[in-house]
Amino acid sequence: MSAPRSQRLFDALFTTEKMRNVFSDRARLQGMLDFEAALARAEARAGMISSAAAKAIAAQCRADLFDVSALASATALAGNPAIPLVRELTARVTSSDTEDALAGRTWLQQGPPVTLGLKAATWLSALERHRERVIRTRRSVATLQFGGAVGTLAALGDQGANVAEALALELDLALPDLPWHAQRDRVCEVATTLGLLTGTLGTIARDVSLLMQTEIAEALEPGAPGRGGSSTMPHKRNPVGSAVILAAAVRVPPLVATMLAAMVQEHERGLGGWHAEWETLPEICMLTAGALARAIEIVEGLQVDPQKMAADLEITHGLVMAEAVSMALAKYLGRQSAHELVEKACALAAREKRHLREVLAADARVTKHLSKAELDRVLDPAGYTGQAAAFVSRVLASRGREKAMKRT
Amino acid sequence: MSAPRSQRLFDALFTTEKMRNVFSDRARLQGMLDFEAALARAEARAGMISSAAAKAIAAQCRADLFDVSALASATALAGNPAIPLVRELTARVTSSDTEDALAGRTWLQQGPPVTLGLKAATWLSALERHRERVIRTRRSVATLQFGGAVGTLAALGDQGANVAEALALELDLALPDLPWHAQRDRVCEVATTLGLLTGTLGTIARDVSLLMQTEIAEALEPGAPGRGGSSTMPHKRNPVGSAVILAAAVRVPPLVATMLAAMVQEHERGLGGWHAEWETLPEICMLTAGALARAIEIVEGLQVDPQKMAADLEITHGLVMAEAVSMALAKYLGRQSAHELVEKACALAAREKRHLREVLAADARVTKHLSKAELDRVLDPAGYTGQAAAFVSRVLASRGREKAMKRT
Amino acid sequence: MSAPRSQRLFDALFTTEKMRNVFSDRARLQGMLDFEAALARAEARAGMISSAAAKAIAAQCRADLFDVSALASATALAGNPAIPLVRELTARVTSSDTEDALAGRTWLQQGPPVTLGLKAATWLSALERHRERVIRTRRSVATLQFGGAVGTLAALGDQGANVAEALALELDLALPDLPWHAQRDRVCEVATTLGLLTGTLGTIARDVSLLMQTEIAEALEPGAPGRGGSSTMPHKRNPVGSAVILAAAVRVPPLVATMLAAMVQEHERGLGGWHAEWETLPEICMLTAGALARAIEIVEGLQVDPQKMAADLEITHGLVMAEAVSMALAKYLGRQSAHELVEKACALAAREKRHLREVLAADARVTKHLSKAELDRVLDPAGYTGQAAAFVSRVLASRGREKAMKRT
Amino acid sequence: MSAPRSQRLFDALFTTEKMRNVFSDRARLQGMLDFEAALARAEARAGMISSAAAKAIAAQCRADLFDVSALASATALAGNPAIPLVRELTARVTSSDTEDALAGRTWLQQGPPVTLGLKAATWLSALERHRERVIRTRRSVATLQFGGAVGTLAALGDQGANVAEALALELDLALPDLPWHAQRDRVCEVATTLGLLTGTLGTIARDVSLLMQTEIAEALEPGAPGRGGSSTMPHKRNPVGSAVILAAAVRVPPLVATMLAAMVQEHERGLGGWHAEWETLPEICMLTAGALARAIEIVEGLQVDPQKMAADLEITHGLVMAEAVSMALAKYLGRQSAHELVEKACALAAREKRHLREVLAADARVTKHLSKAELDRVLDPAGYTGQAAAFVSRVLASRGREKAMKRT
Repeated sequence: MSAPRSQRLFDALFTTEKMRNVFSDRARLQGMLDFEAALARAEARAGMISSAAAKAIAAQCRADLFDVSALASATALAGNPAIPLVRELTARVTSSDTEDALAGRTWLQQGPPVTLGLKAATWLSALERHRERVIRTRRSVATLQFGGAVGTLAALGDQGANVAEALALELDLALPDLPWHAQRDRVCEVATTLGLLTGTLGTIARDVSLLMQTEIAEALEPGAPGRGGSSTMPHKRNPVGSAVILAAAVRVPPLVATMLAAMVQEHERGLGGWHAEWETLPEICMLTAGALARAIEIVEGLQVDPQKMAADLEITHGLVMAEAVSMALAKYLGRQSAHELVEKACALAAREKRHLREVLAADARVTKHLSKAELDRVLDPAGYTGQAAAFVSRVLASRGREKAMKRT
Repeated sequence: MSAPRSQRLFDALFTTEKMRNVFSDRARLQGMLDFEAALARAEARAGMISSAAAKAIAAQCRADLFDVSALASATALAGNPAIPLVRELTARVTSSDTEDALAGRTWLQQGPPVTLGLKAATWLSALERHRERVIRTRRSVATLQFGGAVGTLAALGDQGANVAEALALELDLALPDLPWHAQRDRVCEVATTLGLLTGTLGTIARDVSLLMQTEIAEALEPGAPGRGGSSTMPHKRNPVGSAVILAAAVRVPPLVATMLAAMVQEHERGLGGWHAEWETLPEICMLTAGALARAIEIVEGLQVDPQKMAADLEITHGLVMAEAVSMALAKYLGRQSAHELVEKACALAAREKRHLREVLAADARVTKHLSKAELDRVLDPAGYTGQAAAFVSRVLASRGREKAMKRT
Repeated sequence: MSAPRSQRLFDALFTTEKMRNVFSDRARLQGMLDFEAALARAEARAGMISSAAAKAIAAQCRADLFDVSALASATALAGNPAIPLVRELTARVTSSDTEDALAGRTWLQQGPPVTLGLKAATWLSALERHRERVIRTRRSVATLQFGGAVGTLAALGDQGANVAEALALELDLALPDLPWHAQRDRVCEVATTLGLLTGTLGTIARDVSLLMQTEIAEALEPGAPGRGGSSTMPHKRNPVGSAVILAAAVRVPPLVATMLAAMVQEHERGLGGWHAEWETLPEICMLTAGALARAIEIVEGLQVDPQKMAADLEITHGLVMAEAVSMALAKYLGRQSAHELVEKACALAAREKRHLREVLAADARVTKHLSKAELDRVLDPAGYTGQAAAFVSRVLASRGREKAMKRT
Repeated sequence: MSAPRSQRLFDALFTTEKMRNVFSDRARLQGMLDFEAALARAEARAGMISSAAAKAIAAQCRADLFDVSALASATALAGNPAIPLVRELTARVTSSDTEDALAGRTWLQQGPPVTLGLKAATWLSALERHRERVIRTRRSVATLQFGGAVGTLAALGDQGANVAEALALELDLALPDLPWHAQRDRVCEVATTLGLLTGTLGTIARDVSLLMQTEIAEALEPGAPGRGGSSTMPHKRNPVGSAVILAAAVRVPPLVATMLAAMVQEHERGLGGWHAEWETLPEICMLTAGALARAIEIVEGLQVDPQKMAADLEITHGLVMAEAVSMALAKYLGRQSAHELVEKACALAAREKRHLREVLAADARVTKHLSKAELDRVLDPAGYTGQAAAFVSRVLASRGREKAMKRT
């Protein structure tokens, strides 16, 4: 990937729309023209051609002289490489409705409760790591590749080093230690970094689409005219954003494998492997950008139903709270005895389809230590979320620290 | 991946033998036992169990009590995370035979000459980048994952944070902002980092195996008893090390895709995706370690044939040097005229199967400016390697700077 | 893959246990020894060595002479290549509980009802296709590969064709038109065929694990001691079989990609690509066999809860039946008017959280044509399963036809 | 994939140009319109709407009414599903220059000789198998998928079966036993079949590009104006066709993995997996079609240099013929003695850089049995191609038999 493209690419990681522009035929043409103009100026700096000649060349290096369809203004591409999804998620994690407890779920089975804030904080924490990976990769890939036919710059005589340096300056790229046409690790790291990011977006989309199931409906993607459902099925809210993200999460990993497999390139310029990159990397970028755009919409407009969350926590008639009861009784009965008591109570409740509260309230060994009110408190999911709040605070604090550091 | 394993894993990136130990049934068992012992000690620190109880538990946490086959001493696993391949390559790049020019090759066709040193320096430069990626990834993955059933540590009551902190200390792992069971980016980054590294090893192996072809034979993998060839085919030197590396370069990219696809995990603990990692990540590690071991052997013992390199540069009867001639004549005739003259001379040489030198020596426009000796010099591949030496120095210098920085 | 192995492989597609045997070190050794013995006998037939020599050679070709750990009797490997899963599914599809209607689900949202029998019939129909693919692939891959160093059999002089023919006879393999060492399509087709099969198994496991969710619980994997759940979470029934299948469905596709990528092999015997197959194909076979074994258990012991299915069909308060009402009214009001009437009724029911039945029963345009009993019938999911029963019969009939054909 | 598309797709497997048309926006639109028109006619046949209504609907189902850019006439898409590459390869295999012997190569090292005809015959034989796979897959995928919202056709009342049957007739598709929206094996088999084909094309391209290397140059892709090379490098003949094919062989396998992974679809209509197919299958088809088109050009215009082949067979100074000598002497000295004699002669030849002929001619044990002329004959590669000619005849004969069968 030519370096100026790489920079624009990361700037454009906001929207698929912009990404399409970066990889449009016209933008690709302009990218090549930009390179030619910069090369001319670099040769002028090195005294190889006159300054006037460089200017004349540069004047011709405009894609619009080549009659391609109009391109959105390049200024639209300028921007902040920060991923807005982090901002949206931070906003959500700090909102009040994220204190609601909902069922934790492992293997798609309910377990002890978590909070929606904790769920979102695990996403936020991962996205912070991805943001750092994206920034680092951007820096790594924004490196000049300029080596002539076989990487020696021999055709430039003794001006090779000078022209390369001037060209890197012109294009605002890092000057590498040597040309790297057949060493694709920098370019390929763009693919792996975006692959990791798409995986996290996929896990967000999977969770949201599972929470949106008709039978669960604890959280919904934002509604929009013409989105999901149909006139005769107004109950339906299709997870259309999640579908786009999940499709990306299916498609990107094999495309990353293509990029890695294509690294095995022959000698100074490879055959086939190099060509395999041309459409694959843009596809990875566009799929990731599309998934990001949808994830932002979902996080921003997620509709949460705390009542349904609470109701679903009652489906097991208190069994998901067995661990909490066991913990509470351990203080009085010792771990082992408490565990055995609760184990039997759970079995009895399951067998007779009674609520665990009822079974426990009928057991003298329990009532001896826990009053009815205390038992209610122990069985309240909201009171058994462990370090959830502390973990959320820690994630937000590290965000805050970082922001503060940036302001300084 | 449990964190202590991750550390050992990177320490063991030297040899497949050690890697096998890290992923052996017994080592996996011991890894789990180590965790249990550390957890007991952490709970003791937090005052949740007595110190004596922690010791008693730890005393039982030895895999050898579980009767599995003997494990190579753990001390063998200690070591330096530096990749010895970098050291071997540095040694080669600084050796004298790397100044030999051999044909640059693009699309498997000969172009202007490069030096073997430049070729090796492009590998070295990429491996330096991989070394940094491996170090960074090692740091990132060596992070405690400890969250109880659903990531809240609720079962530990108000001691959750304390136990987690003590456990991280015990295991010498970083304490993360929050548990991350369903957020696999750290673990998956091990896969992508090793995927990138294997790609570079693959490109080295491809080059070596191409250079080893019977018809080219410019460089050979080190010979070893029983390696390649057969008694009746003593000419044969099978690229057995390259075969292992190339097989890894075919197998690892799809395995990385598996890891990325498996990131889409459900809620607090996923179904299927998580299970897909168990054998895949060890496989990636072992394939990479095996490829690394072979690459070290190849680089260390590579046999170079400068005579064959020189002979192959004569196959085109001087045509690969056309660019050099064009450059030399441009000073006298101007770029355009020089180019046209050389273009015609090349066509004539190709048509009449004569050497380019001969055609040029018969052209008065050439001999007017270049004596026979000058023409010989222009057509000498060793004189047309551009910035090759400078690039090599730059790569070595950055190695040197780094070493110096480490000494300080 | 050597041909006798391929046959055993498909015979062993029943259980992972047998598959492990096929790919054990010992079985691989015996496979090579079998080949040597057969080759000796073939050379004897062609008069190249004496019959006594062939016998002496064969006598030595026993893996047990080579002191490897005991192998399950080869007779256990004999068997029927039919996939027992087809039999189990047929049994289920013909069982009475498959007439229960449950919600059809698209995009994880409820739609009109289907029957469990229809769901299982779509699986059965796909598995029948896979069975044919497996049989065809088995036939295709059971083809002799025997060509000497470069595929000419030159070392056998004028006996090459004879020995090849006799060897194919000995090994009970098809004789190909020519040796095919570098043409891997037959071997690779094993991978693609099993890849397709694993995809279908994955979709079965996904459906089952979604139906098993605590909140849905319409169908459960068979319970087994020590499976899923824990003593304090007796409500939990972890989809452990589905987890194994889903992990296989994540892992197999990239391994198929490895096999396809490895097809690009050089000249008469490739480098790297060929080596990449060695562990990859066994892995695909074992993962598929493991997934098959789990799928059989799941289908055989699936526990269905018709009450929960019926209850879940009421979650939308009749909205999933809107299409049925629209159809029923169309006879009296015309399509367009009926559609508009139902659309408004649905919107009203959703807005006021009332049951669609109640809204419709209050509309004179409806009651004019449909009595209360008729409206109840129209809104009964069991009455709106369209061609479900006919489709199931058709799938079973084609199974029956086939069986009858085989008896003849 | 809608079924009429599938048919056109396979008809269009000739050229990328046509393939692009099949997957153009307009063609996709027309495909949908075709389906709507056929459905209207089917409903008319079943008496559900009037014939006039069906006609009126069909009249509107024209993509050109929707103002999209012109589409190449559909008649251009009609054609013969046979793969022209088979025809071209057959022509080559029967041409005289394929009797030339060239070095067999294993692990990129020279071994005993093969003939170019044998090499091409192994390709032809594989392509014949692919042709059968393509025909079979075409038949399998050309199956109606029509099931309404959830696969029951409930909205068509008791006319569901009739409409489906009529629709299959209208669209000239097979009527399946039941709708199969979430069972993707038929569609996915298109991907695996083309994946296998691309692998074979890749191995052809790899061989050709290796034979084209400047140092080997035994065969060349057809030259074309503007192809490969440059004015100052007239020796260069870039393997541009092979590059396209090899890039496809790198890109297609992971795309096949995408299709297989996407098979795991939820319930009656999946989320994400289904969407992942939309661009992936067209991409596989276009890459395969492009690779096929290039392969046809390469096979049709392949330029062979028998002199260079012969010269390269002399590079090892006779060592590649050691096996032949050993075979010839075995008749007189016995296998073991002959082998030992030749082994020593080879070692001596290699050590002293002499030709094997010379070493053997100086050995009385050899000259006792073989005259100089006989030794020359034994060392002649053309005389040691084993069953090459017979294998080629067998491949051609099976082609012939098939043709004859078709004429009948």
